[in-house]
Amino acid sequence: MRLQGFACALMITLTTWGQSDSEAVKTLFETSLADGMSYHWLDHLSNQIGGRLSGSENAERAVVYVKNELEKLGLDEVRLQSVMVPKWVRGSSEKGEIRGTDGTKRLLNICALGGSVATPDAGLSARVVEVQGIDQMKEMGPEAIKGKIVFFNRPMENTLIHTFEAYGGCVDQRHTGAMEAGILGAAGVIVRSMNLRLDDYPHTGSMTYGELPVDQRIPSAAISTNDAEFLSKKLKTDPDLDLFFWQNCQQFEDVESFNVIGEITGTEFPNQYMIVGGHLDSWDLGDGSHDDGAGVVQSMEVLRLIKKSGIRPRRSIRVVLFMNEENGLRGGRKYAEEASSKGEKHIFALESDSGGFTPRGFSFDCSDEDFARILQWQPLFKPYLIHYFEKGGSGADIGPLKSEGIVLAGLRPDSQRYFDHHHASNDTFDAVNRRELELGAATMASLVYLVDRHGTNATANQPIKD
Amino acid sequence: MRLQGFACALMITLTTWGQSDSEAVKTLFETSLADGMSYHWLDHLSNQIGGRLSGSENAERAVVYVKNELEKLGLDEVRLQSVMVPKWVRGSSEKGEIRGTDGTKRLLNICALGGSVATPDAGLSARVVEVQGIDQMKEMGPEAIKGKIVFFNRPMENTLIHTFEAYGGCVDQRHTGAMEAGILGAAGVIVRSMNLRLDDYPHTGSMTYGELPVDQRIPSAAISTNDAEFLSKKLKTDPDLDLFFWQNCQQFEDVESFNVIGEITGTEFPNQYMIVGGHLDSWDLGDGSHDDGAGVVQSMEVLRLIKKSGIRPRRSIRVVLFMNEENGLRGGRKYAEEASSKGEKHIFALESDSGGFTPRGFSFDCSDEDFARILQWQPLFKPYLIHYFEKGGSGADIGPLKSEGIVLAGLRPDSQRYFDHHHASNDTFDAVNRRELELGAATMASLVYLVDRHGTNATANQPIKD
Repeated sequence: MRLQGFACALMITLTTWGQSDSEAVKTLFETSLADGMSYHWLDHLSNQIGGRLSGSENAERAVVYVKNELEKLGLDEVRLQSVMVPKWVRGSSEKGEIRGTDGTKRLLNICALGGSVATPDAGLSARVVEVQGIDQMKEMGPEAIKGKIVFFNRPMENTLIHTFEAYGGCVDQRHTGAMEAGILGAAGVIVRSMNLRLDDYPHTGSMTYGELPVDQRIPSAAISTNDAEFLSKKLKTDPDLDLFFWQNCQQFEDVESFNVIGEITGTEFPNQYMIVGGHLDSWDLGDGSHDDGAGVVQSMEVLRLIKKSGIRPRRSIRVVLFMNEENGLRGGRKYAEEASSKGEKHIFALESDSGGFTPRGFSFDCSDEDFARILQWQPLFKPYLIHYFEKGGSGADIGPLKSEGIVLAGLRPDSQRYFDHHHASNDTFDAVNRRELELGAATMASLVYLVDRHGTNATANQPIKD
Repeated sequence: MRLQGFACALMITLTTWGQSDSEAVKTLFETSLADGMSYHWLDHLSNQIGGRLSGSENAERAVVYVKNELEKLGLDEVRLQSVMVPKWVRGSSEKGEIRGTDGTKRLLNICALGGSVATPDAGLSARVVEVQGIDQMKEMGPEAIKGKIVFFNRPMENTLIHTFEAYGGCVDQRHTGAMEAGILGAAGVIVRSMNLRLDDYPHTGSMTYGELPVDQRIPSAAISTNDAEFLSKKLKTDPDLDLFFWQNCQQFEDVESFNVIGEITGTEFPNQYMIVGGHLDSWDLGDGSHDDGAGVVQSMEVLRLIKKSGIRPRRSIRVVLFMNEENGLRGGRKYAEEASSKGEKHIFALESDSGGFTPRGFSFDCSDEDFARILQWQPLFKPYLIHYFEKGGSGADIGPLKSEGIVLAGLRPDSQRYFDHHHASNDTFDAVNRRELELGAATMASLVYLVDRHGTNATANQPIKD
C-alpha cells in the first residue's frame, strides 16, 4: 500500500529522476536482501582471515581473497596497486595492574595504542596523574607530570546523538596525549578507551609521536572504561598508588602492501571515474568486521549489484579497497596520487567506514550546487527509510581525492552501537546483522547508480543515450 | 554547529510550537542519555525476574517490582488494576526428531506454540505434508492431510524493508494453522519460526483453536529456520520420513493478575487522560527484554523524565503496564472497559512494543486533522534523527481504546534485528543496547510532552496558562 502510494507521488514530482530510477533502486535493494553476497564475504574476511593490521600476513591474505572474489564478478579490470605501509606489531603479551599503597592489586584490561613504543623489559611502574585532557595537563606543567603516568580520563559525551561527534571530542587524548605528555617528561600514558559504554574491553587506535626525539617517546596504552572508572575512584582515596604496565610492541620497517581495485568501465564516459570503497586493513584485536570489513564487502557488493541488476554504467565505476587507513592512510594517499598523475577525472567517491549497521543516509562533502542536486533524489530513498542527507565529512581514504567539482560522500549508518566495538576485541562477525549490512550495500549502490545516471553538477548536461 | 543552525531555522518556522518546546525536547533527550533509569530497570526485569508469561510467578513478581519502582517516582497515584488472565504452561520438556526411512535421525530445535495442546504421552509421530500456507493446505483437501503432520514453511519475505510487514504476511500459519489443519483431520502442525534469519532458535507465539471441538485440537510447535530448511530439503529426497515430536504443555483455569498504572495528574485538565505503555507479560523462552521489557521501562521512564525535567503536565499522564498482551490481550481490554465505564476521556495513547532498538519515529492511528497537526512537530525531532511519521497501526494493548477523536500512536524503532529475537530464547538483556533504549524513551517522552502542551485537534483551543 505504502509503496504504491509512493509510486504515484513519484510520477507527479518528477524532477531530475524518473520512474525507471525508482524501479532501479527497488531492484538494487531487493537483490541485496534476497541474493546478497556481502555477508558471505564478510564471514570469510572475519572468520577465515581475522584482524588485518597493515603489514601483517592477514592483511596480505585479505588482499588475495578480495582480489579473487572481485575476479569472479566479471568486472572489466581487477588489479593491485602497490603501496608501502608501516608495520607495527603488538607483541606477545600486555599486562597492567593497579598497585595500591596498602598492597592491594587489581589487574587491568589494557592494550597498547597502535604505534606506541614498548615499555622497558621489566615494565613501567609509576604514580598516576589523572587529567581530563591535554589542556589540563599542560596547565599543570612539567613539575606535576615528570616521571608520572598520565591518565587521560575525559569520557565521550553521552548526550550527543551523533556518536562520531562524541568520539571527535575525545580522541585527541589517544592520538597526541603521549606526544604531549612526553614533552612534559611523563613516563607513560594511559587513556580511557573511546567507548560510550561501561565494559571491560580496552580499545586500541592510532597515536603519534610527531617529530618527538626518540628518547621522549613514552609508552601509551588504553584501559577499559570500567577500569578507568575504577582507577579514577581509587585515586581519590589512594592518590599515591602505583600503576604498572608492560607491553613489548614494536615498529618495523615499512613493507609492501596493496590497494585492491576493480572496475566496470563506463559505456559513454569511460574517462569519468566514480569510486566506492572501504578499507581492507583493520586493527588486530578483533576481526575488523565493522571497522571496516563491512565497508569492504558493501563496496564490492555495489559493483556486483549493479552488474546483477543489468545496469550498464555510463561512467566508469571502481571499487577501491584501501590498505592502511588505520595507521597511516597510505592507501588513500597512493590512490589519489596515481589518479592525479594519470590525469584521471574523478567525479564522485563514496566510502563506507562507519560500521555495518542500519543505514540512515549519507553526508556529503561537495559544492552547494551538487548538494542541491543530490537532495532531489532523496524521495527515492524514502521507502527504504533512508532519510539523512546532510553536508559533512565523507571518509578518510577518499579525502585525498578532494578537488573542485568532485562529490565526496560517506555512508551514515546508525551509530549508537559503533563505539561499543570500535578497535576492540569485540569487533567481530557476530556483532553484524545480515540485513543491516545488506541494506547499507543497497543504499550505496542506489546512490552510485543515480550519480552515474544523472551526473554531478559539472557533468550533468550530457544527455542519457538509452 | 548543526544544532545551532537548526535553532535558527526553528525561530523562522514557528507554527504550533515554540523555542521552549525545542529546549524541553533537548532536556528530555539529555536526561534520558545522561541519567536514565530505563536500562537499570530492564536489567532487573530481565536478569532478576526473567520471562513473564501471564499467570506465572514471574509475571506476579514483575507486577510487584514495577509497582514499587513507580512508587519511588513520586507520582500522584500508583495502583493495580485486577484482570483475569489465561494460564498456559509449557511443561517439563520438548523434543522433536526427523526420522528418515533409512533409519537416520536428526534432533529438532522445537518449541510448543503458546496455547497448544500436548501431544499424546508417547509423543506424536507421522508423515509430513509441507505447505506454503493455509490456502495451499485447504486446496489439497482432507485426503492429503488426514493423519499427517502439516509443515507450514512459508518464510518471511526478506525483501520487505518493514520487517513487521513480513511478519504480518506469515503469522497466520502460526496463529490459525493448527485450527485449520485440525478441521482437515491432521495429526499435528509444525511451523517454520517467524524469523528472517537462518539460525537454530525456535520462536514461539500465540495460536488459537477458535471454536474447534476438543477432539479436533491438534498439537502445534515451531522449529528453527535452519531445521525448517533441512526438513524441506530432506522431504524432497525422503518424502516418507516420519516427524516425531513430544510436548506436555497444559492450559489451566484463568488466574488473577494485574495491569500496573501510575499517574501524574494534570494541572489544568486533569480529566483529559494521555497514556503511555507497554506490556509486562512476555513469552517464557527468553527474558522478554525486547518484547516487551523495553516498552515497559521506556514507558516508566517517560513519566520519570517529565518529572525530572520539571515539566508540570497540563493533562493527566498515565503509564499503563499491561498484562497479557501475548496470549489474550486481557489487560488492554480491561483498561479500556474501565476507562469507558468511568467515563474517562482519553485523548492520546502511545505504546512501545516493537523492541528497544534505535527509534526512527512513530506511526499514528488518528484523524487526518490530528495527523497534520502532529506533522508540524516533526522538525523538533530532526536533531535526534527521528524522521518516521506515518499513519498506520499503534499497539495491541491500546487498540481497545480506539474511539473518535483519540490519537493512538506506536513507537517505531529500527526493526531489522527484531525478529532475530522475537519470542525466542535469545530475547535477552544482552541484545539490548543502552543508548538505543534510552533514545526510545526520550523520543516517546518528547511526543507525550508535545501532545500535553498543545493538545490534540479536539482539545487544542484551550490556551496555555503559563
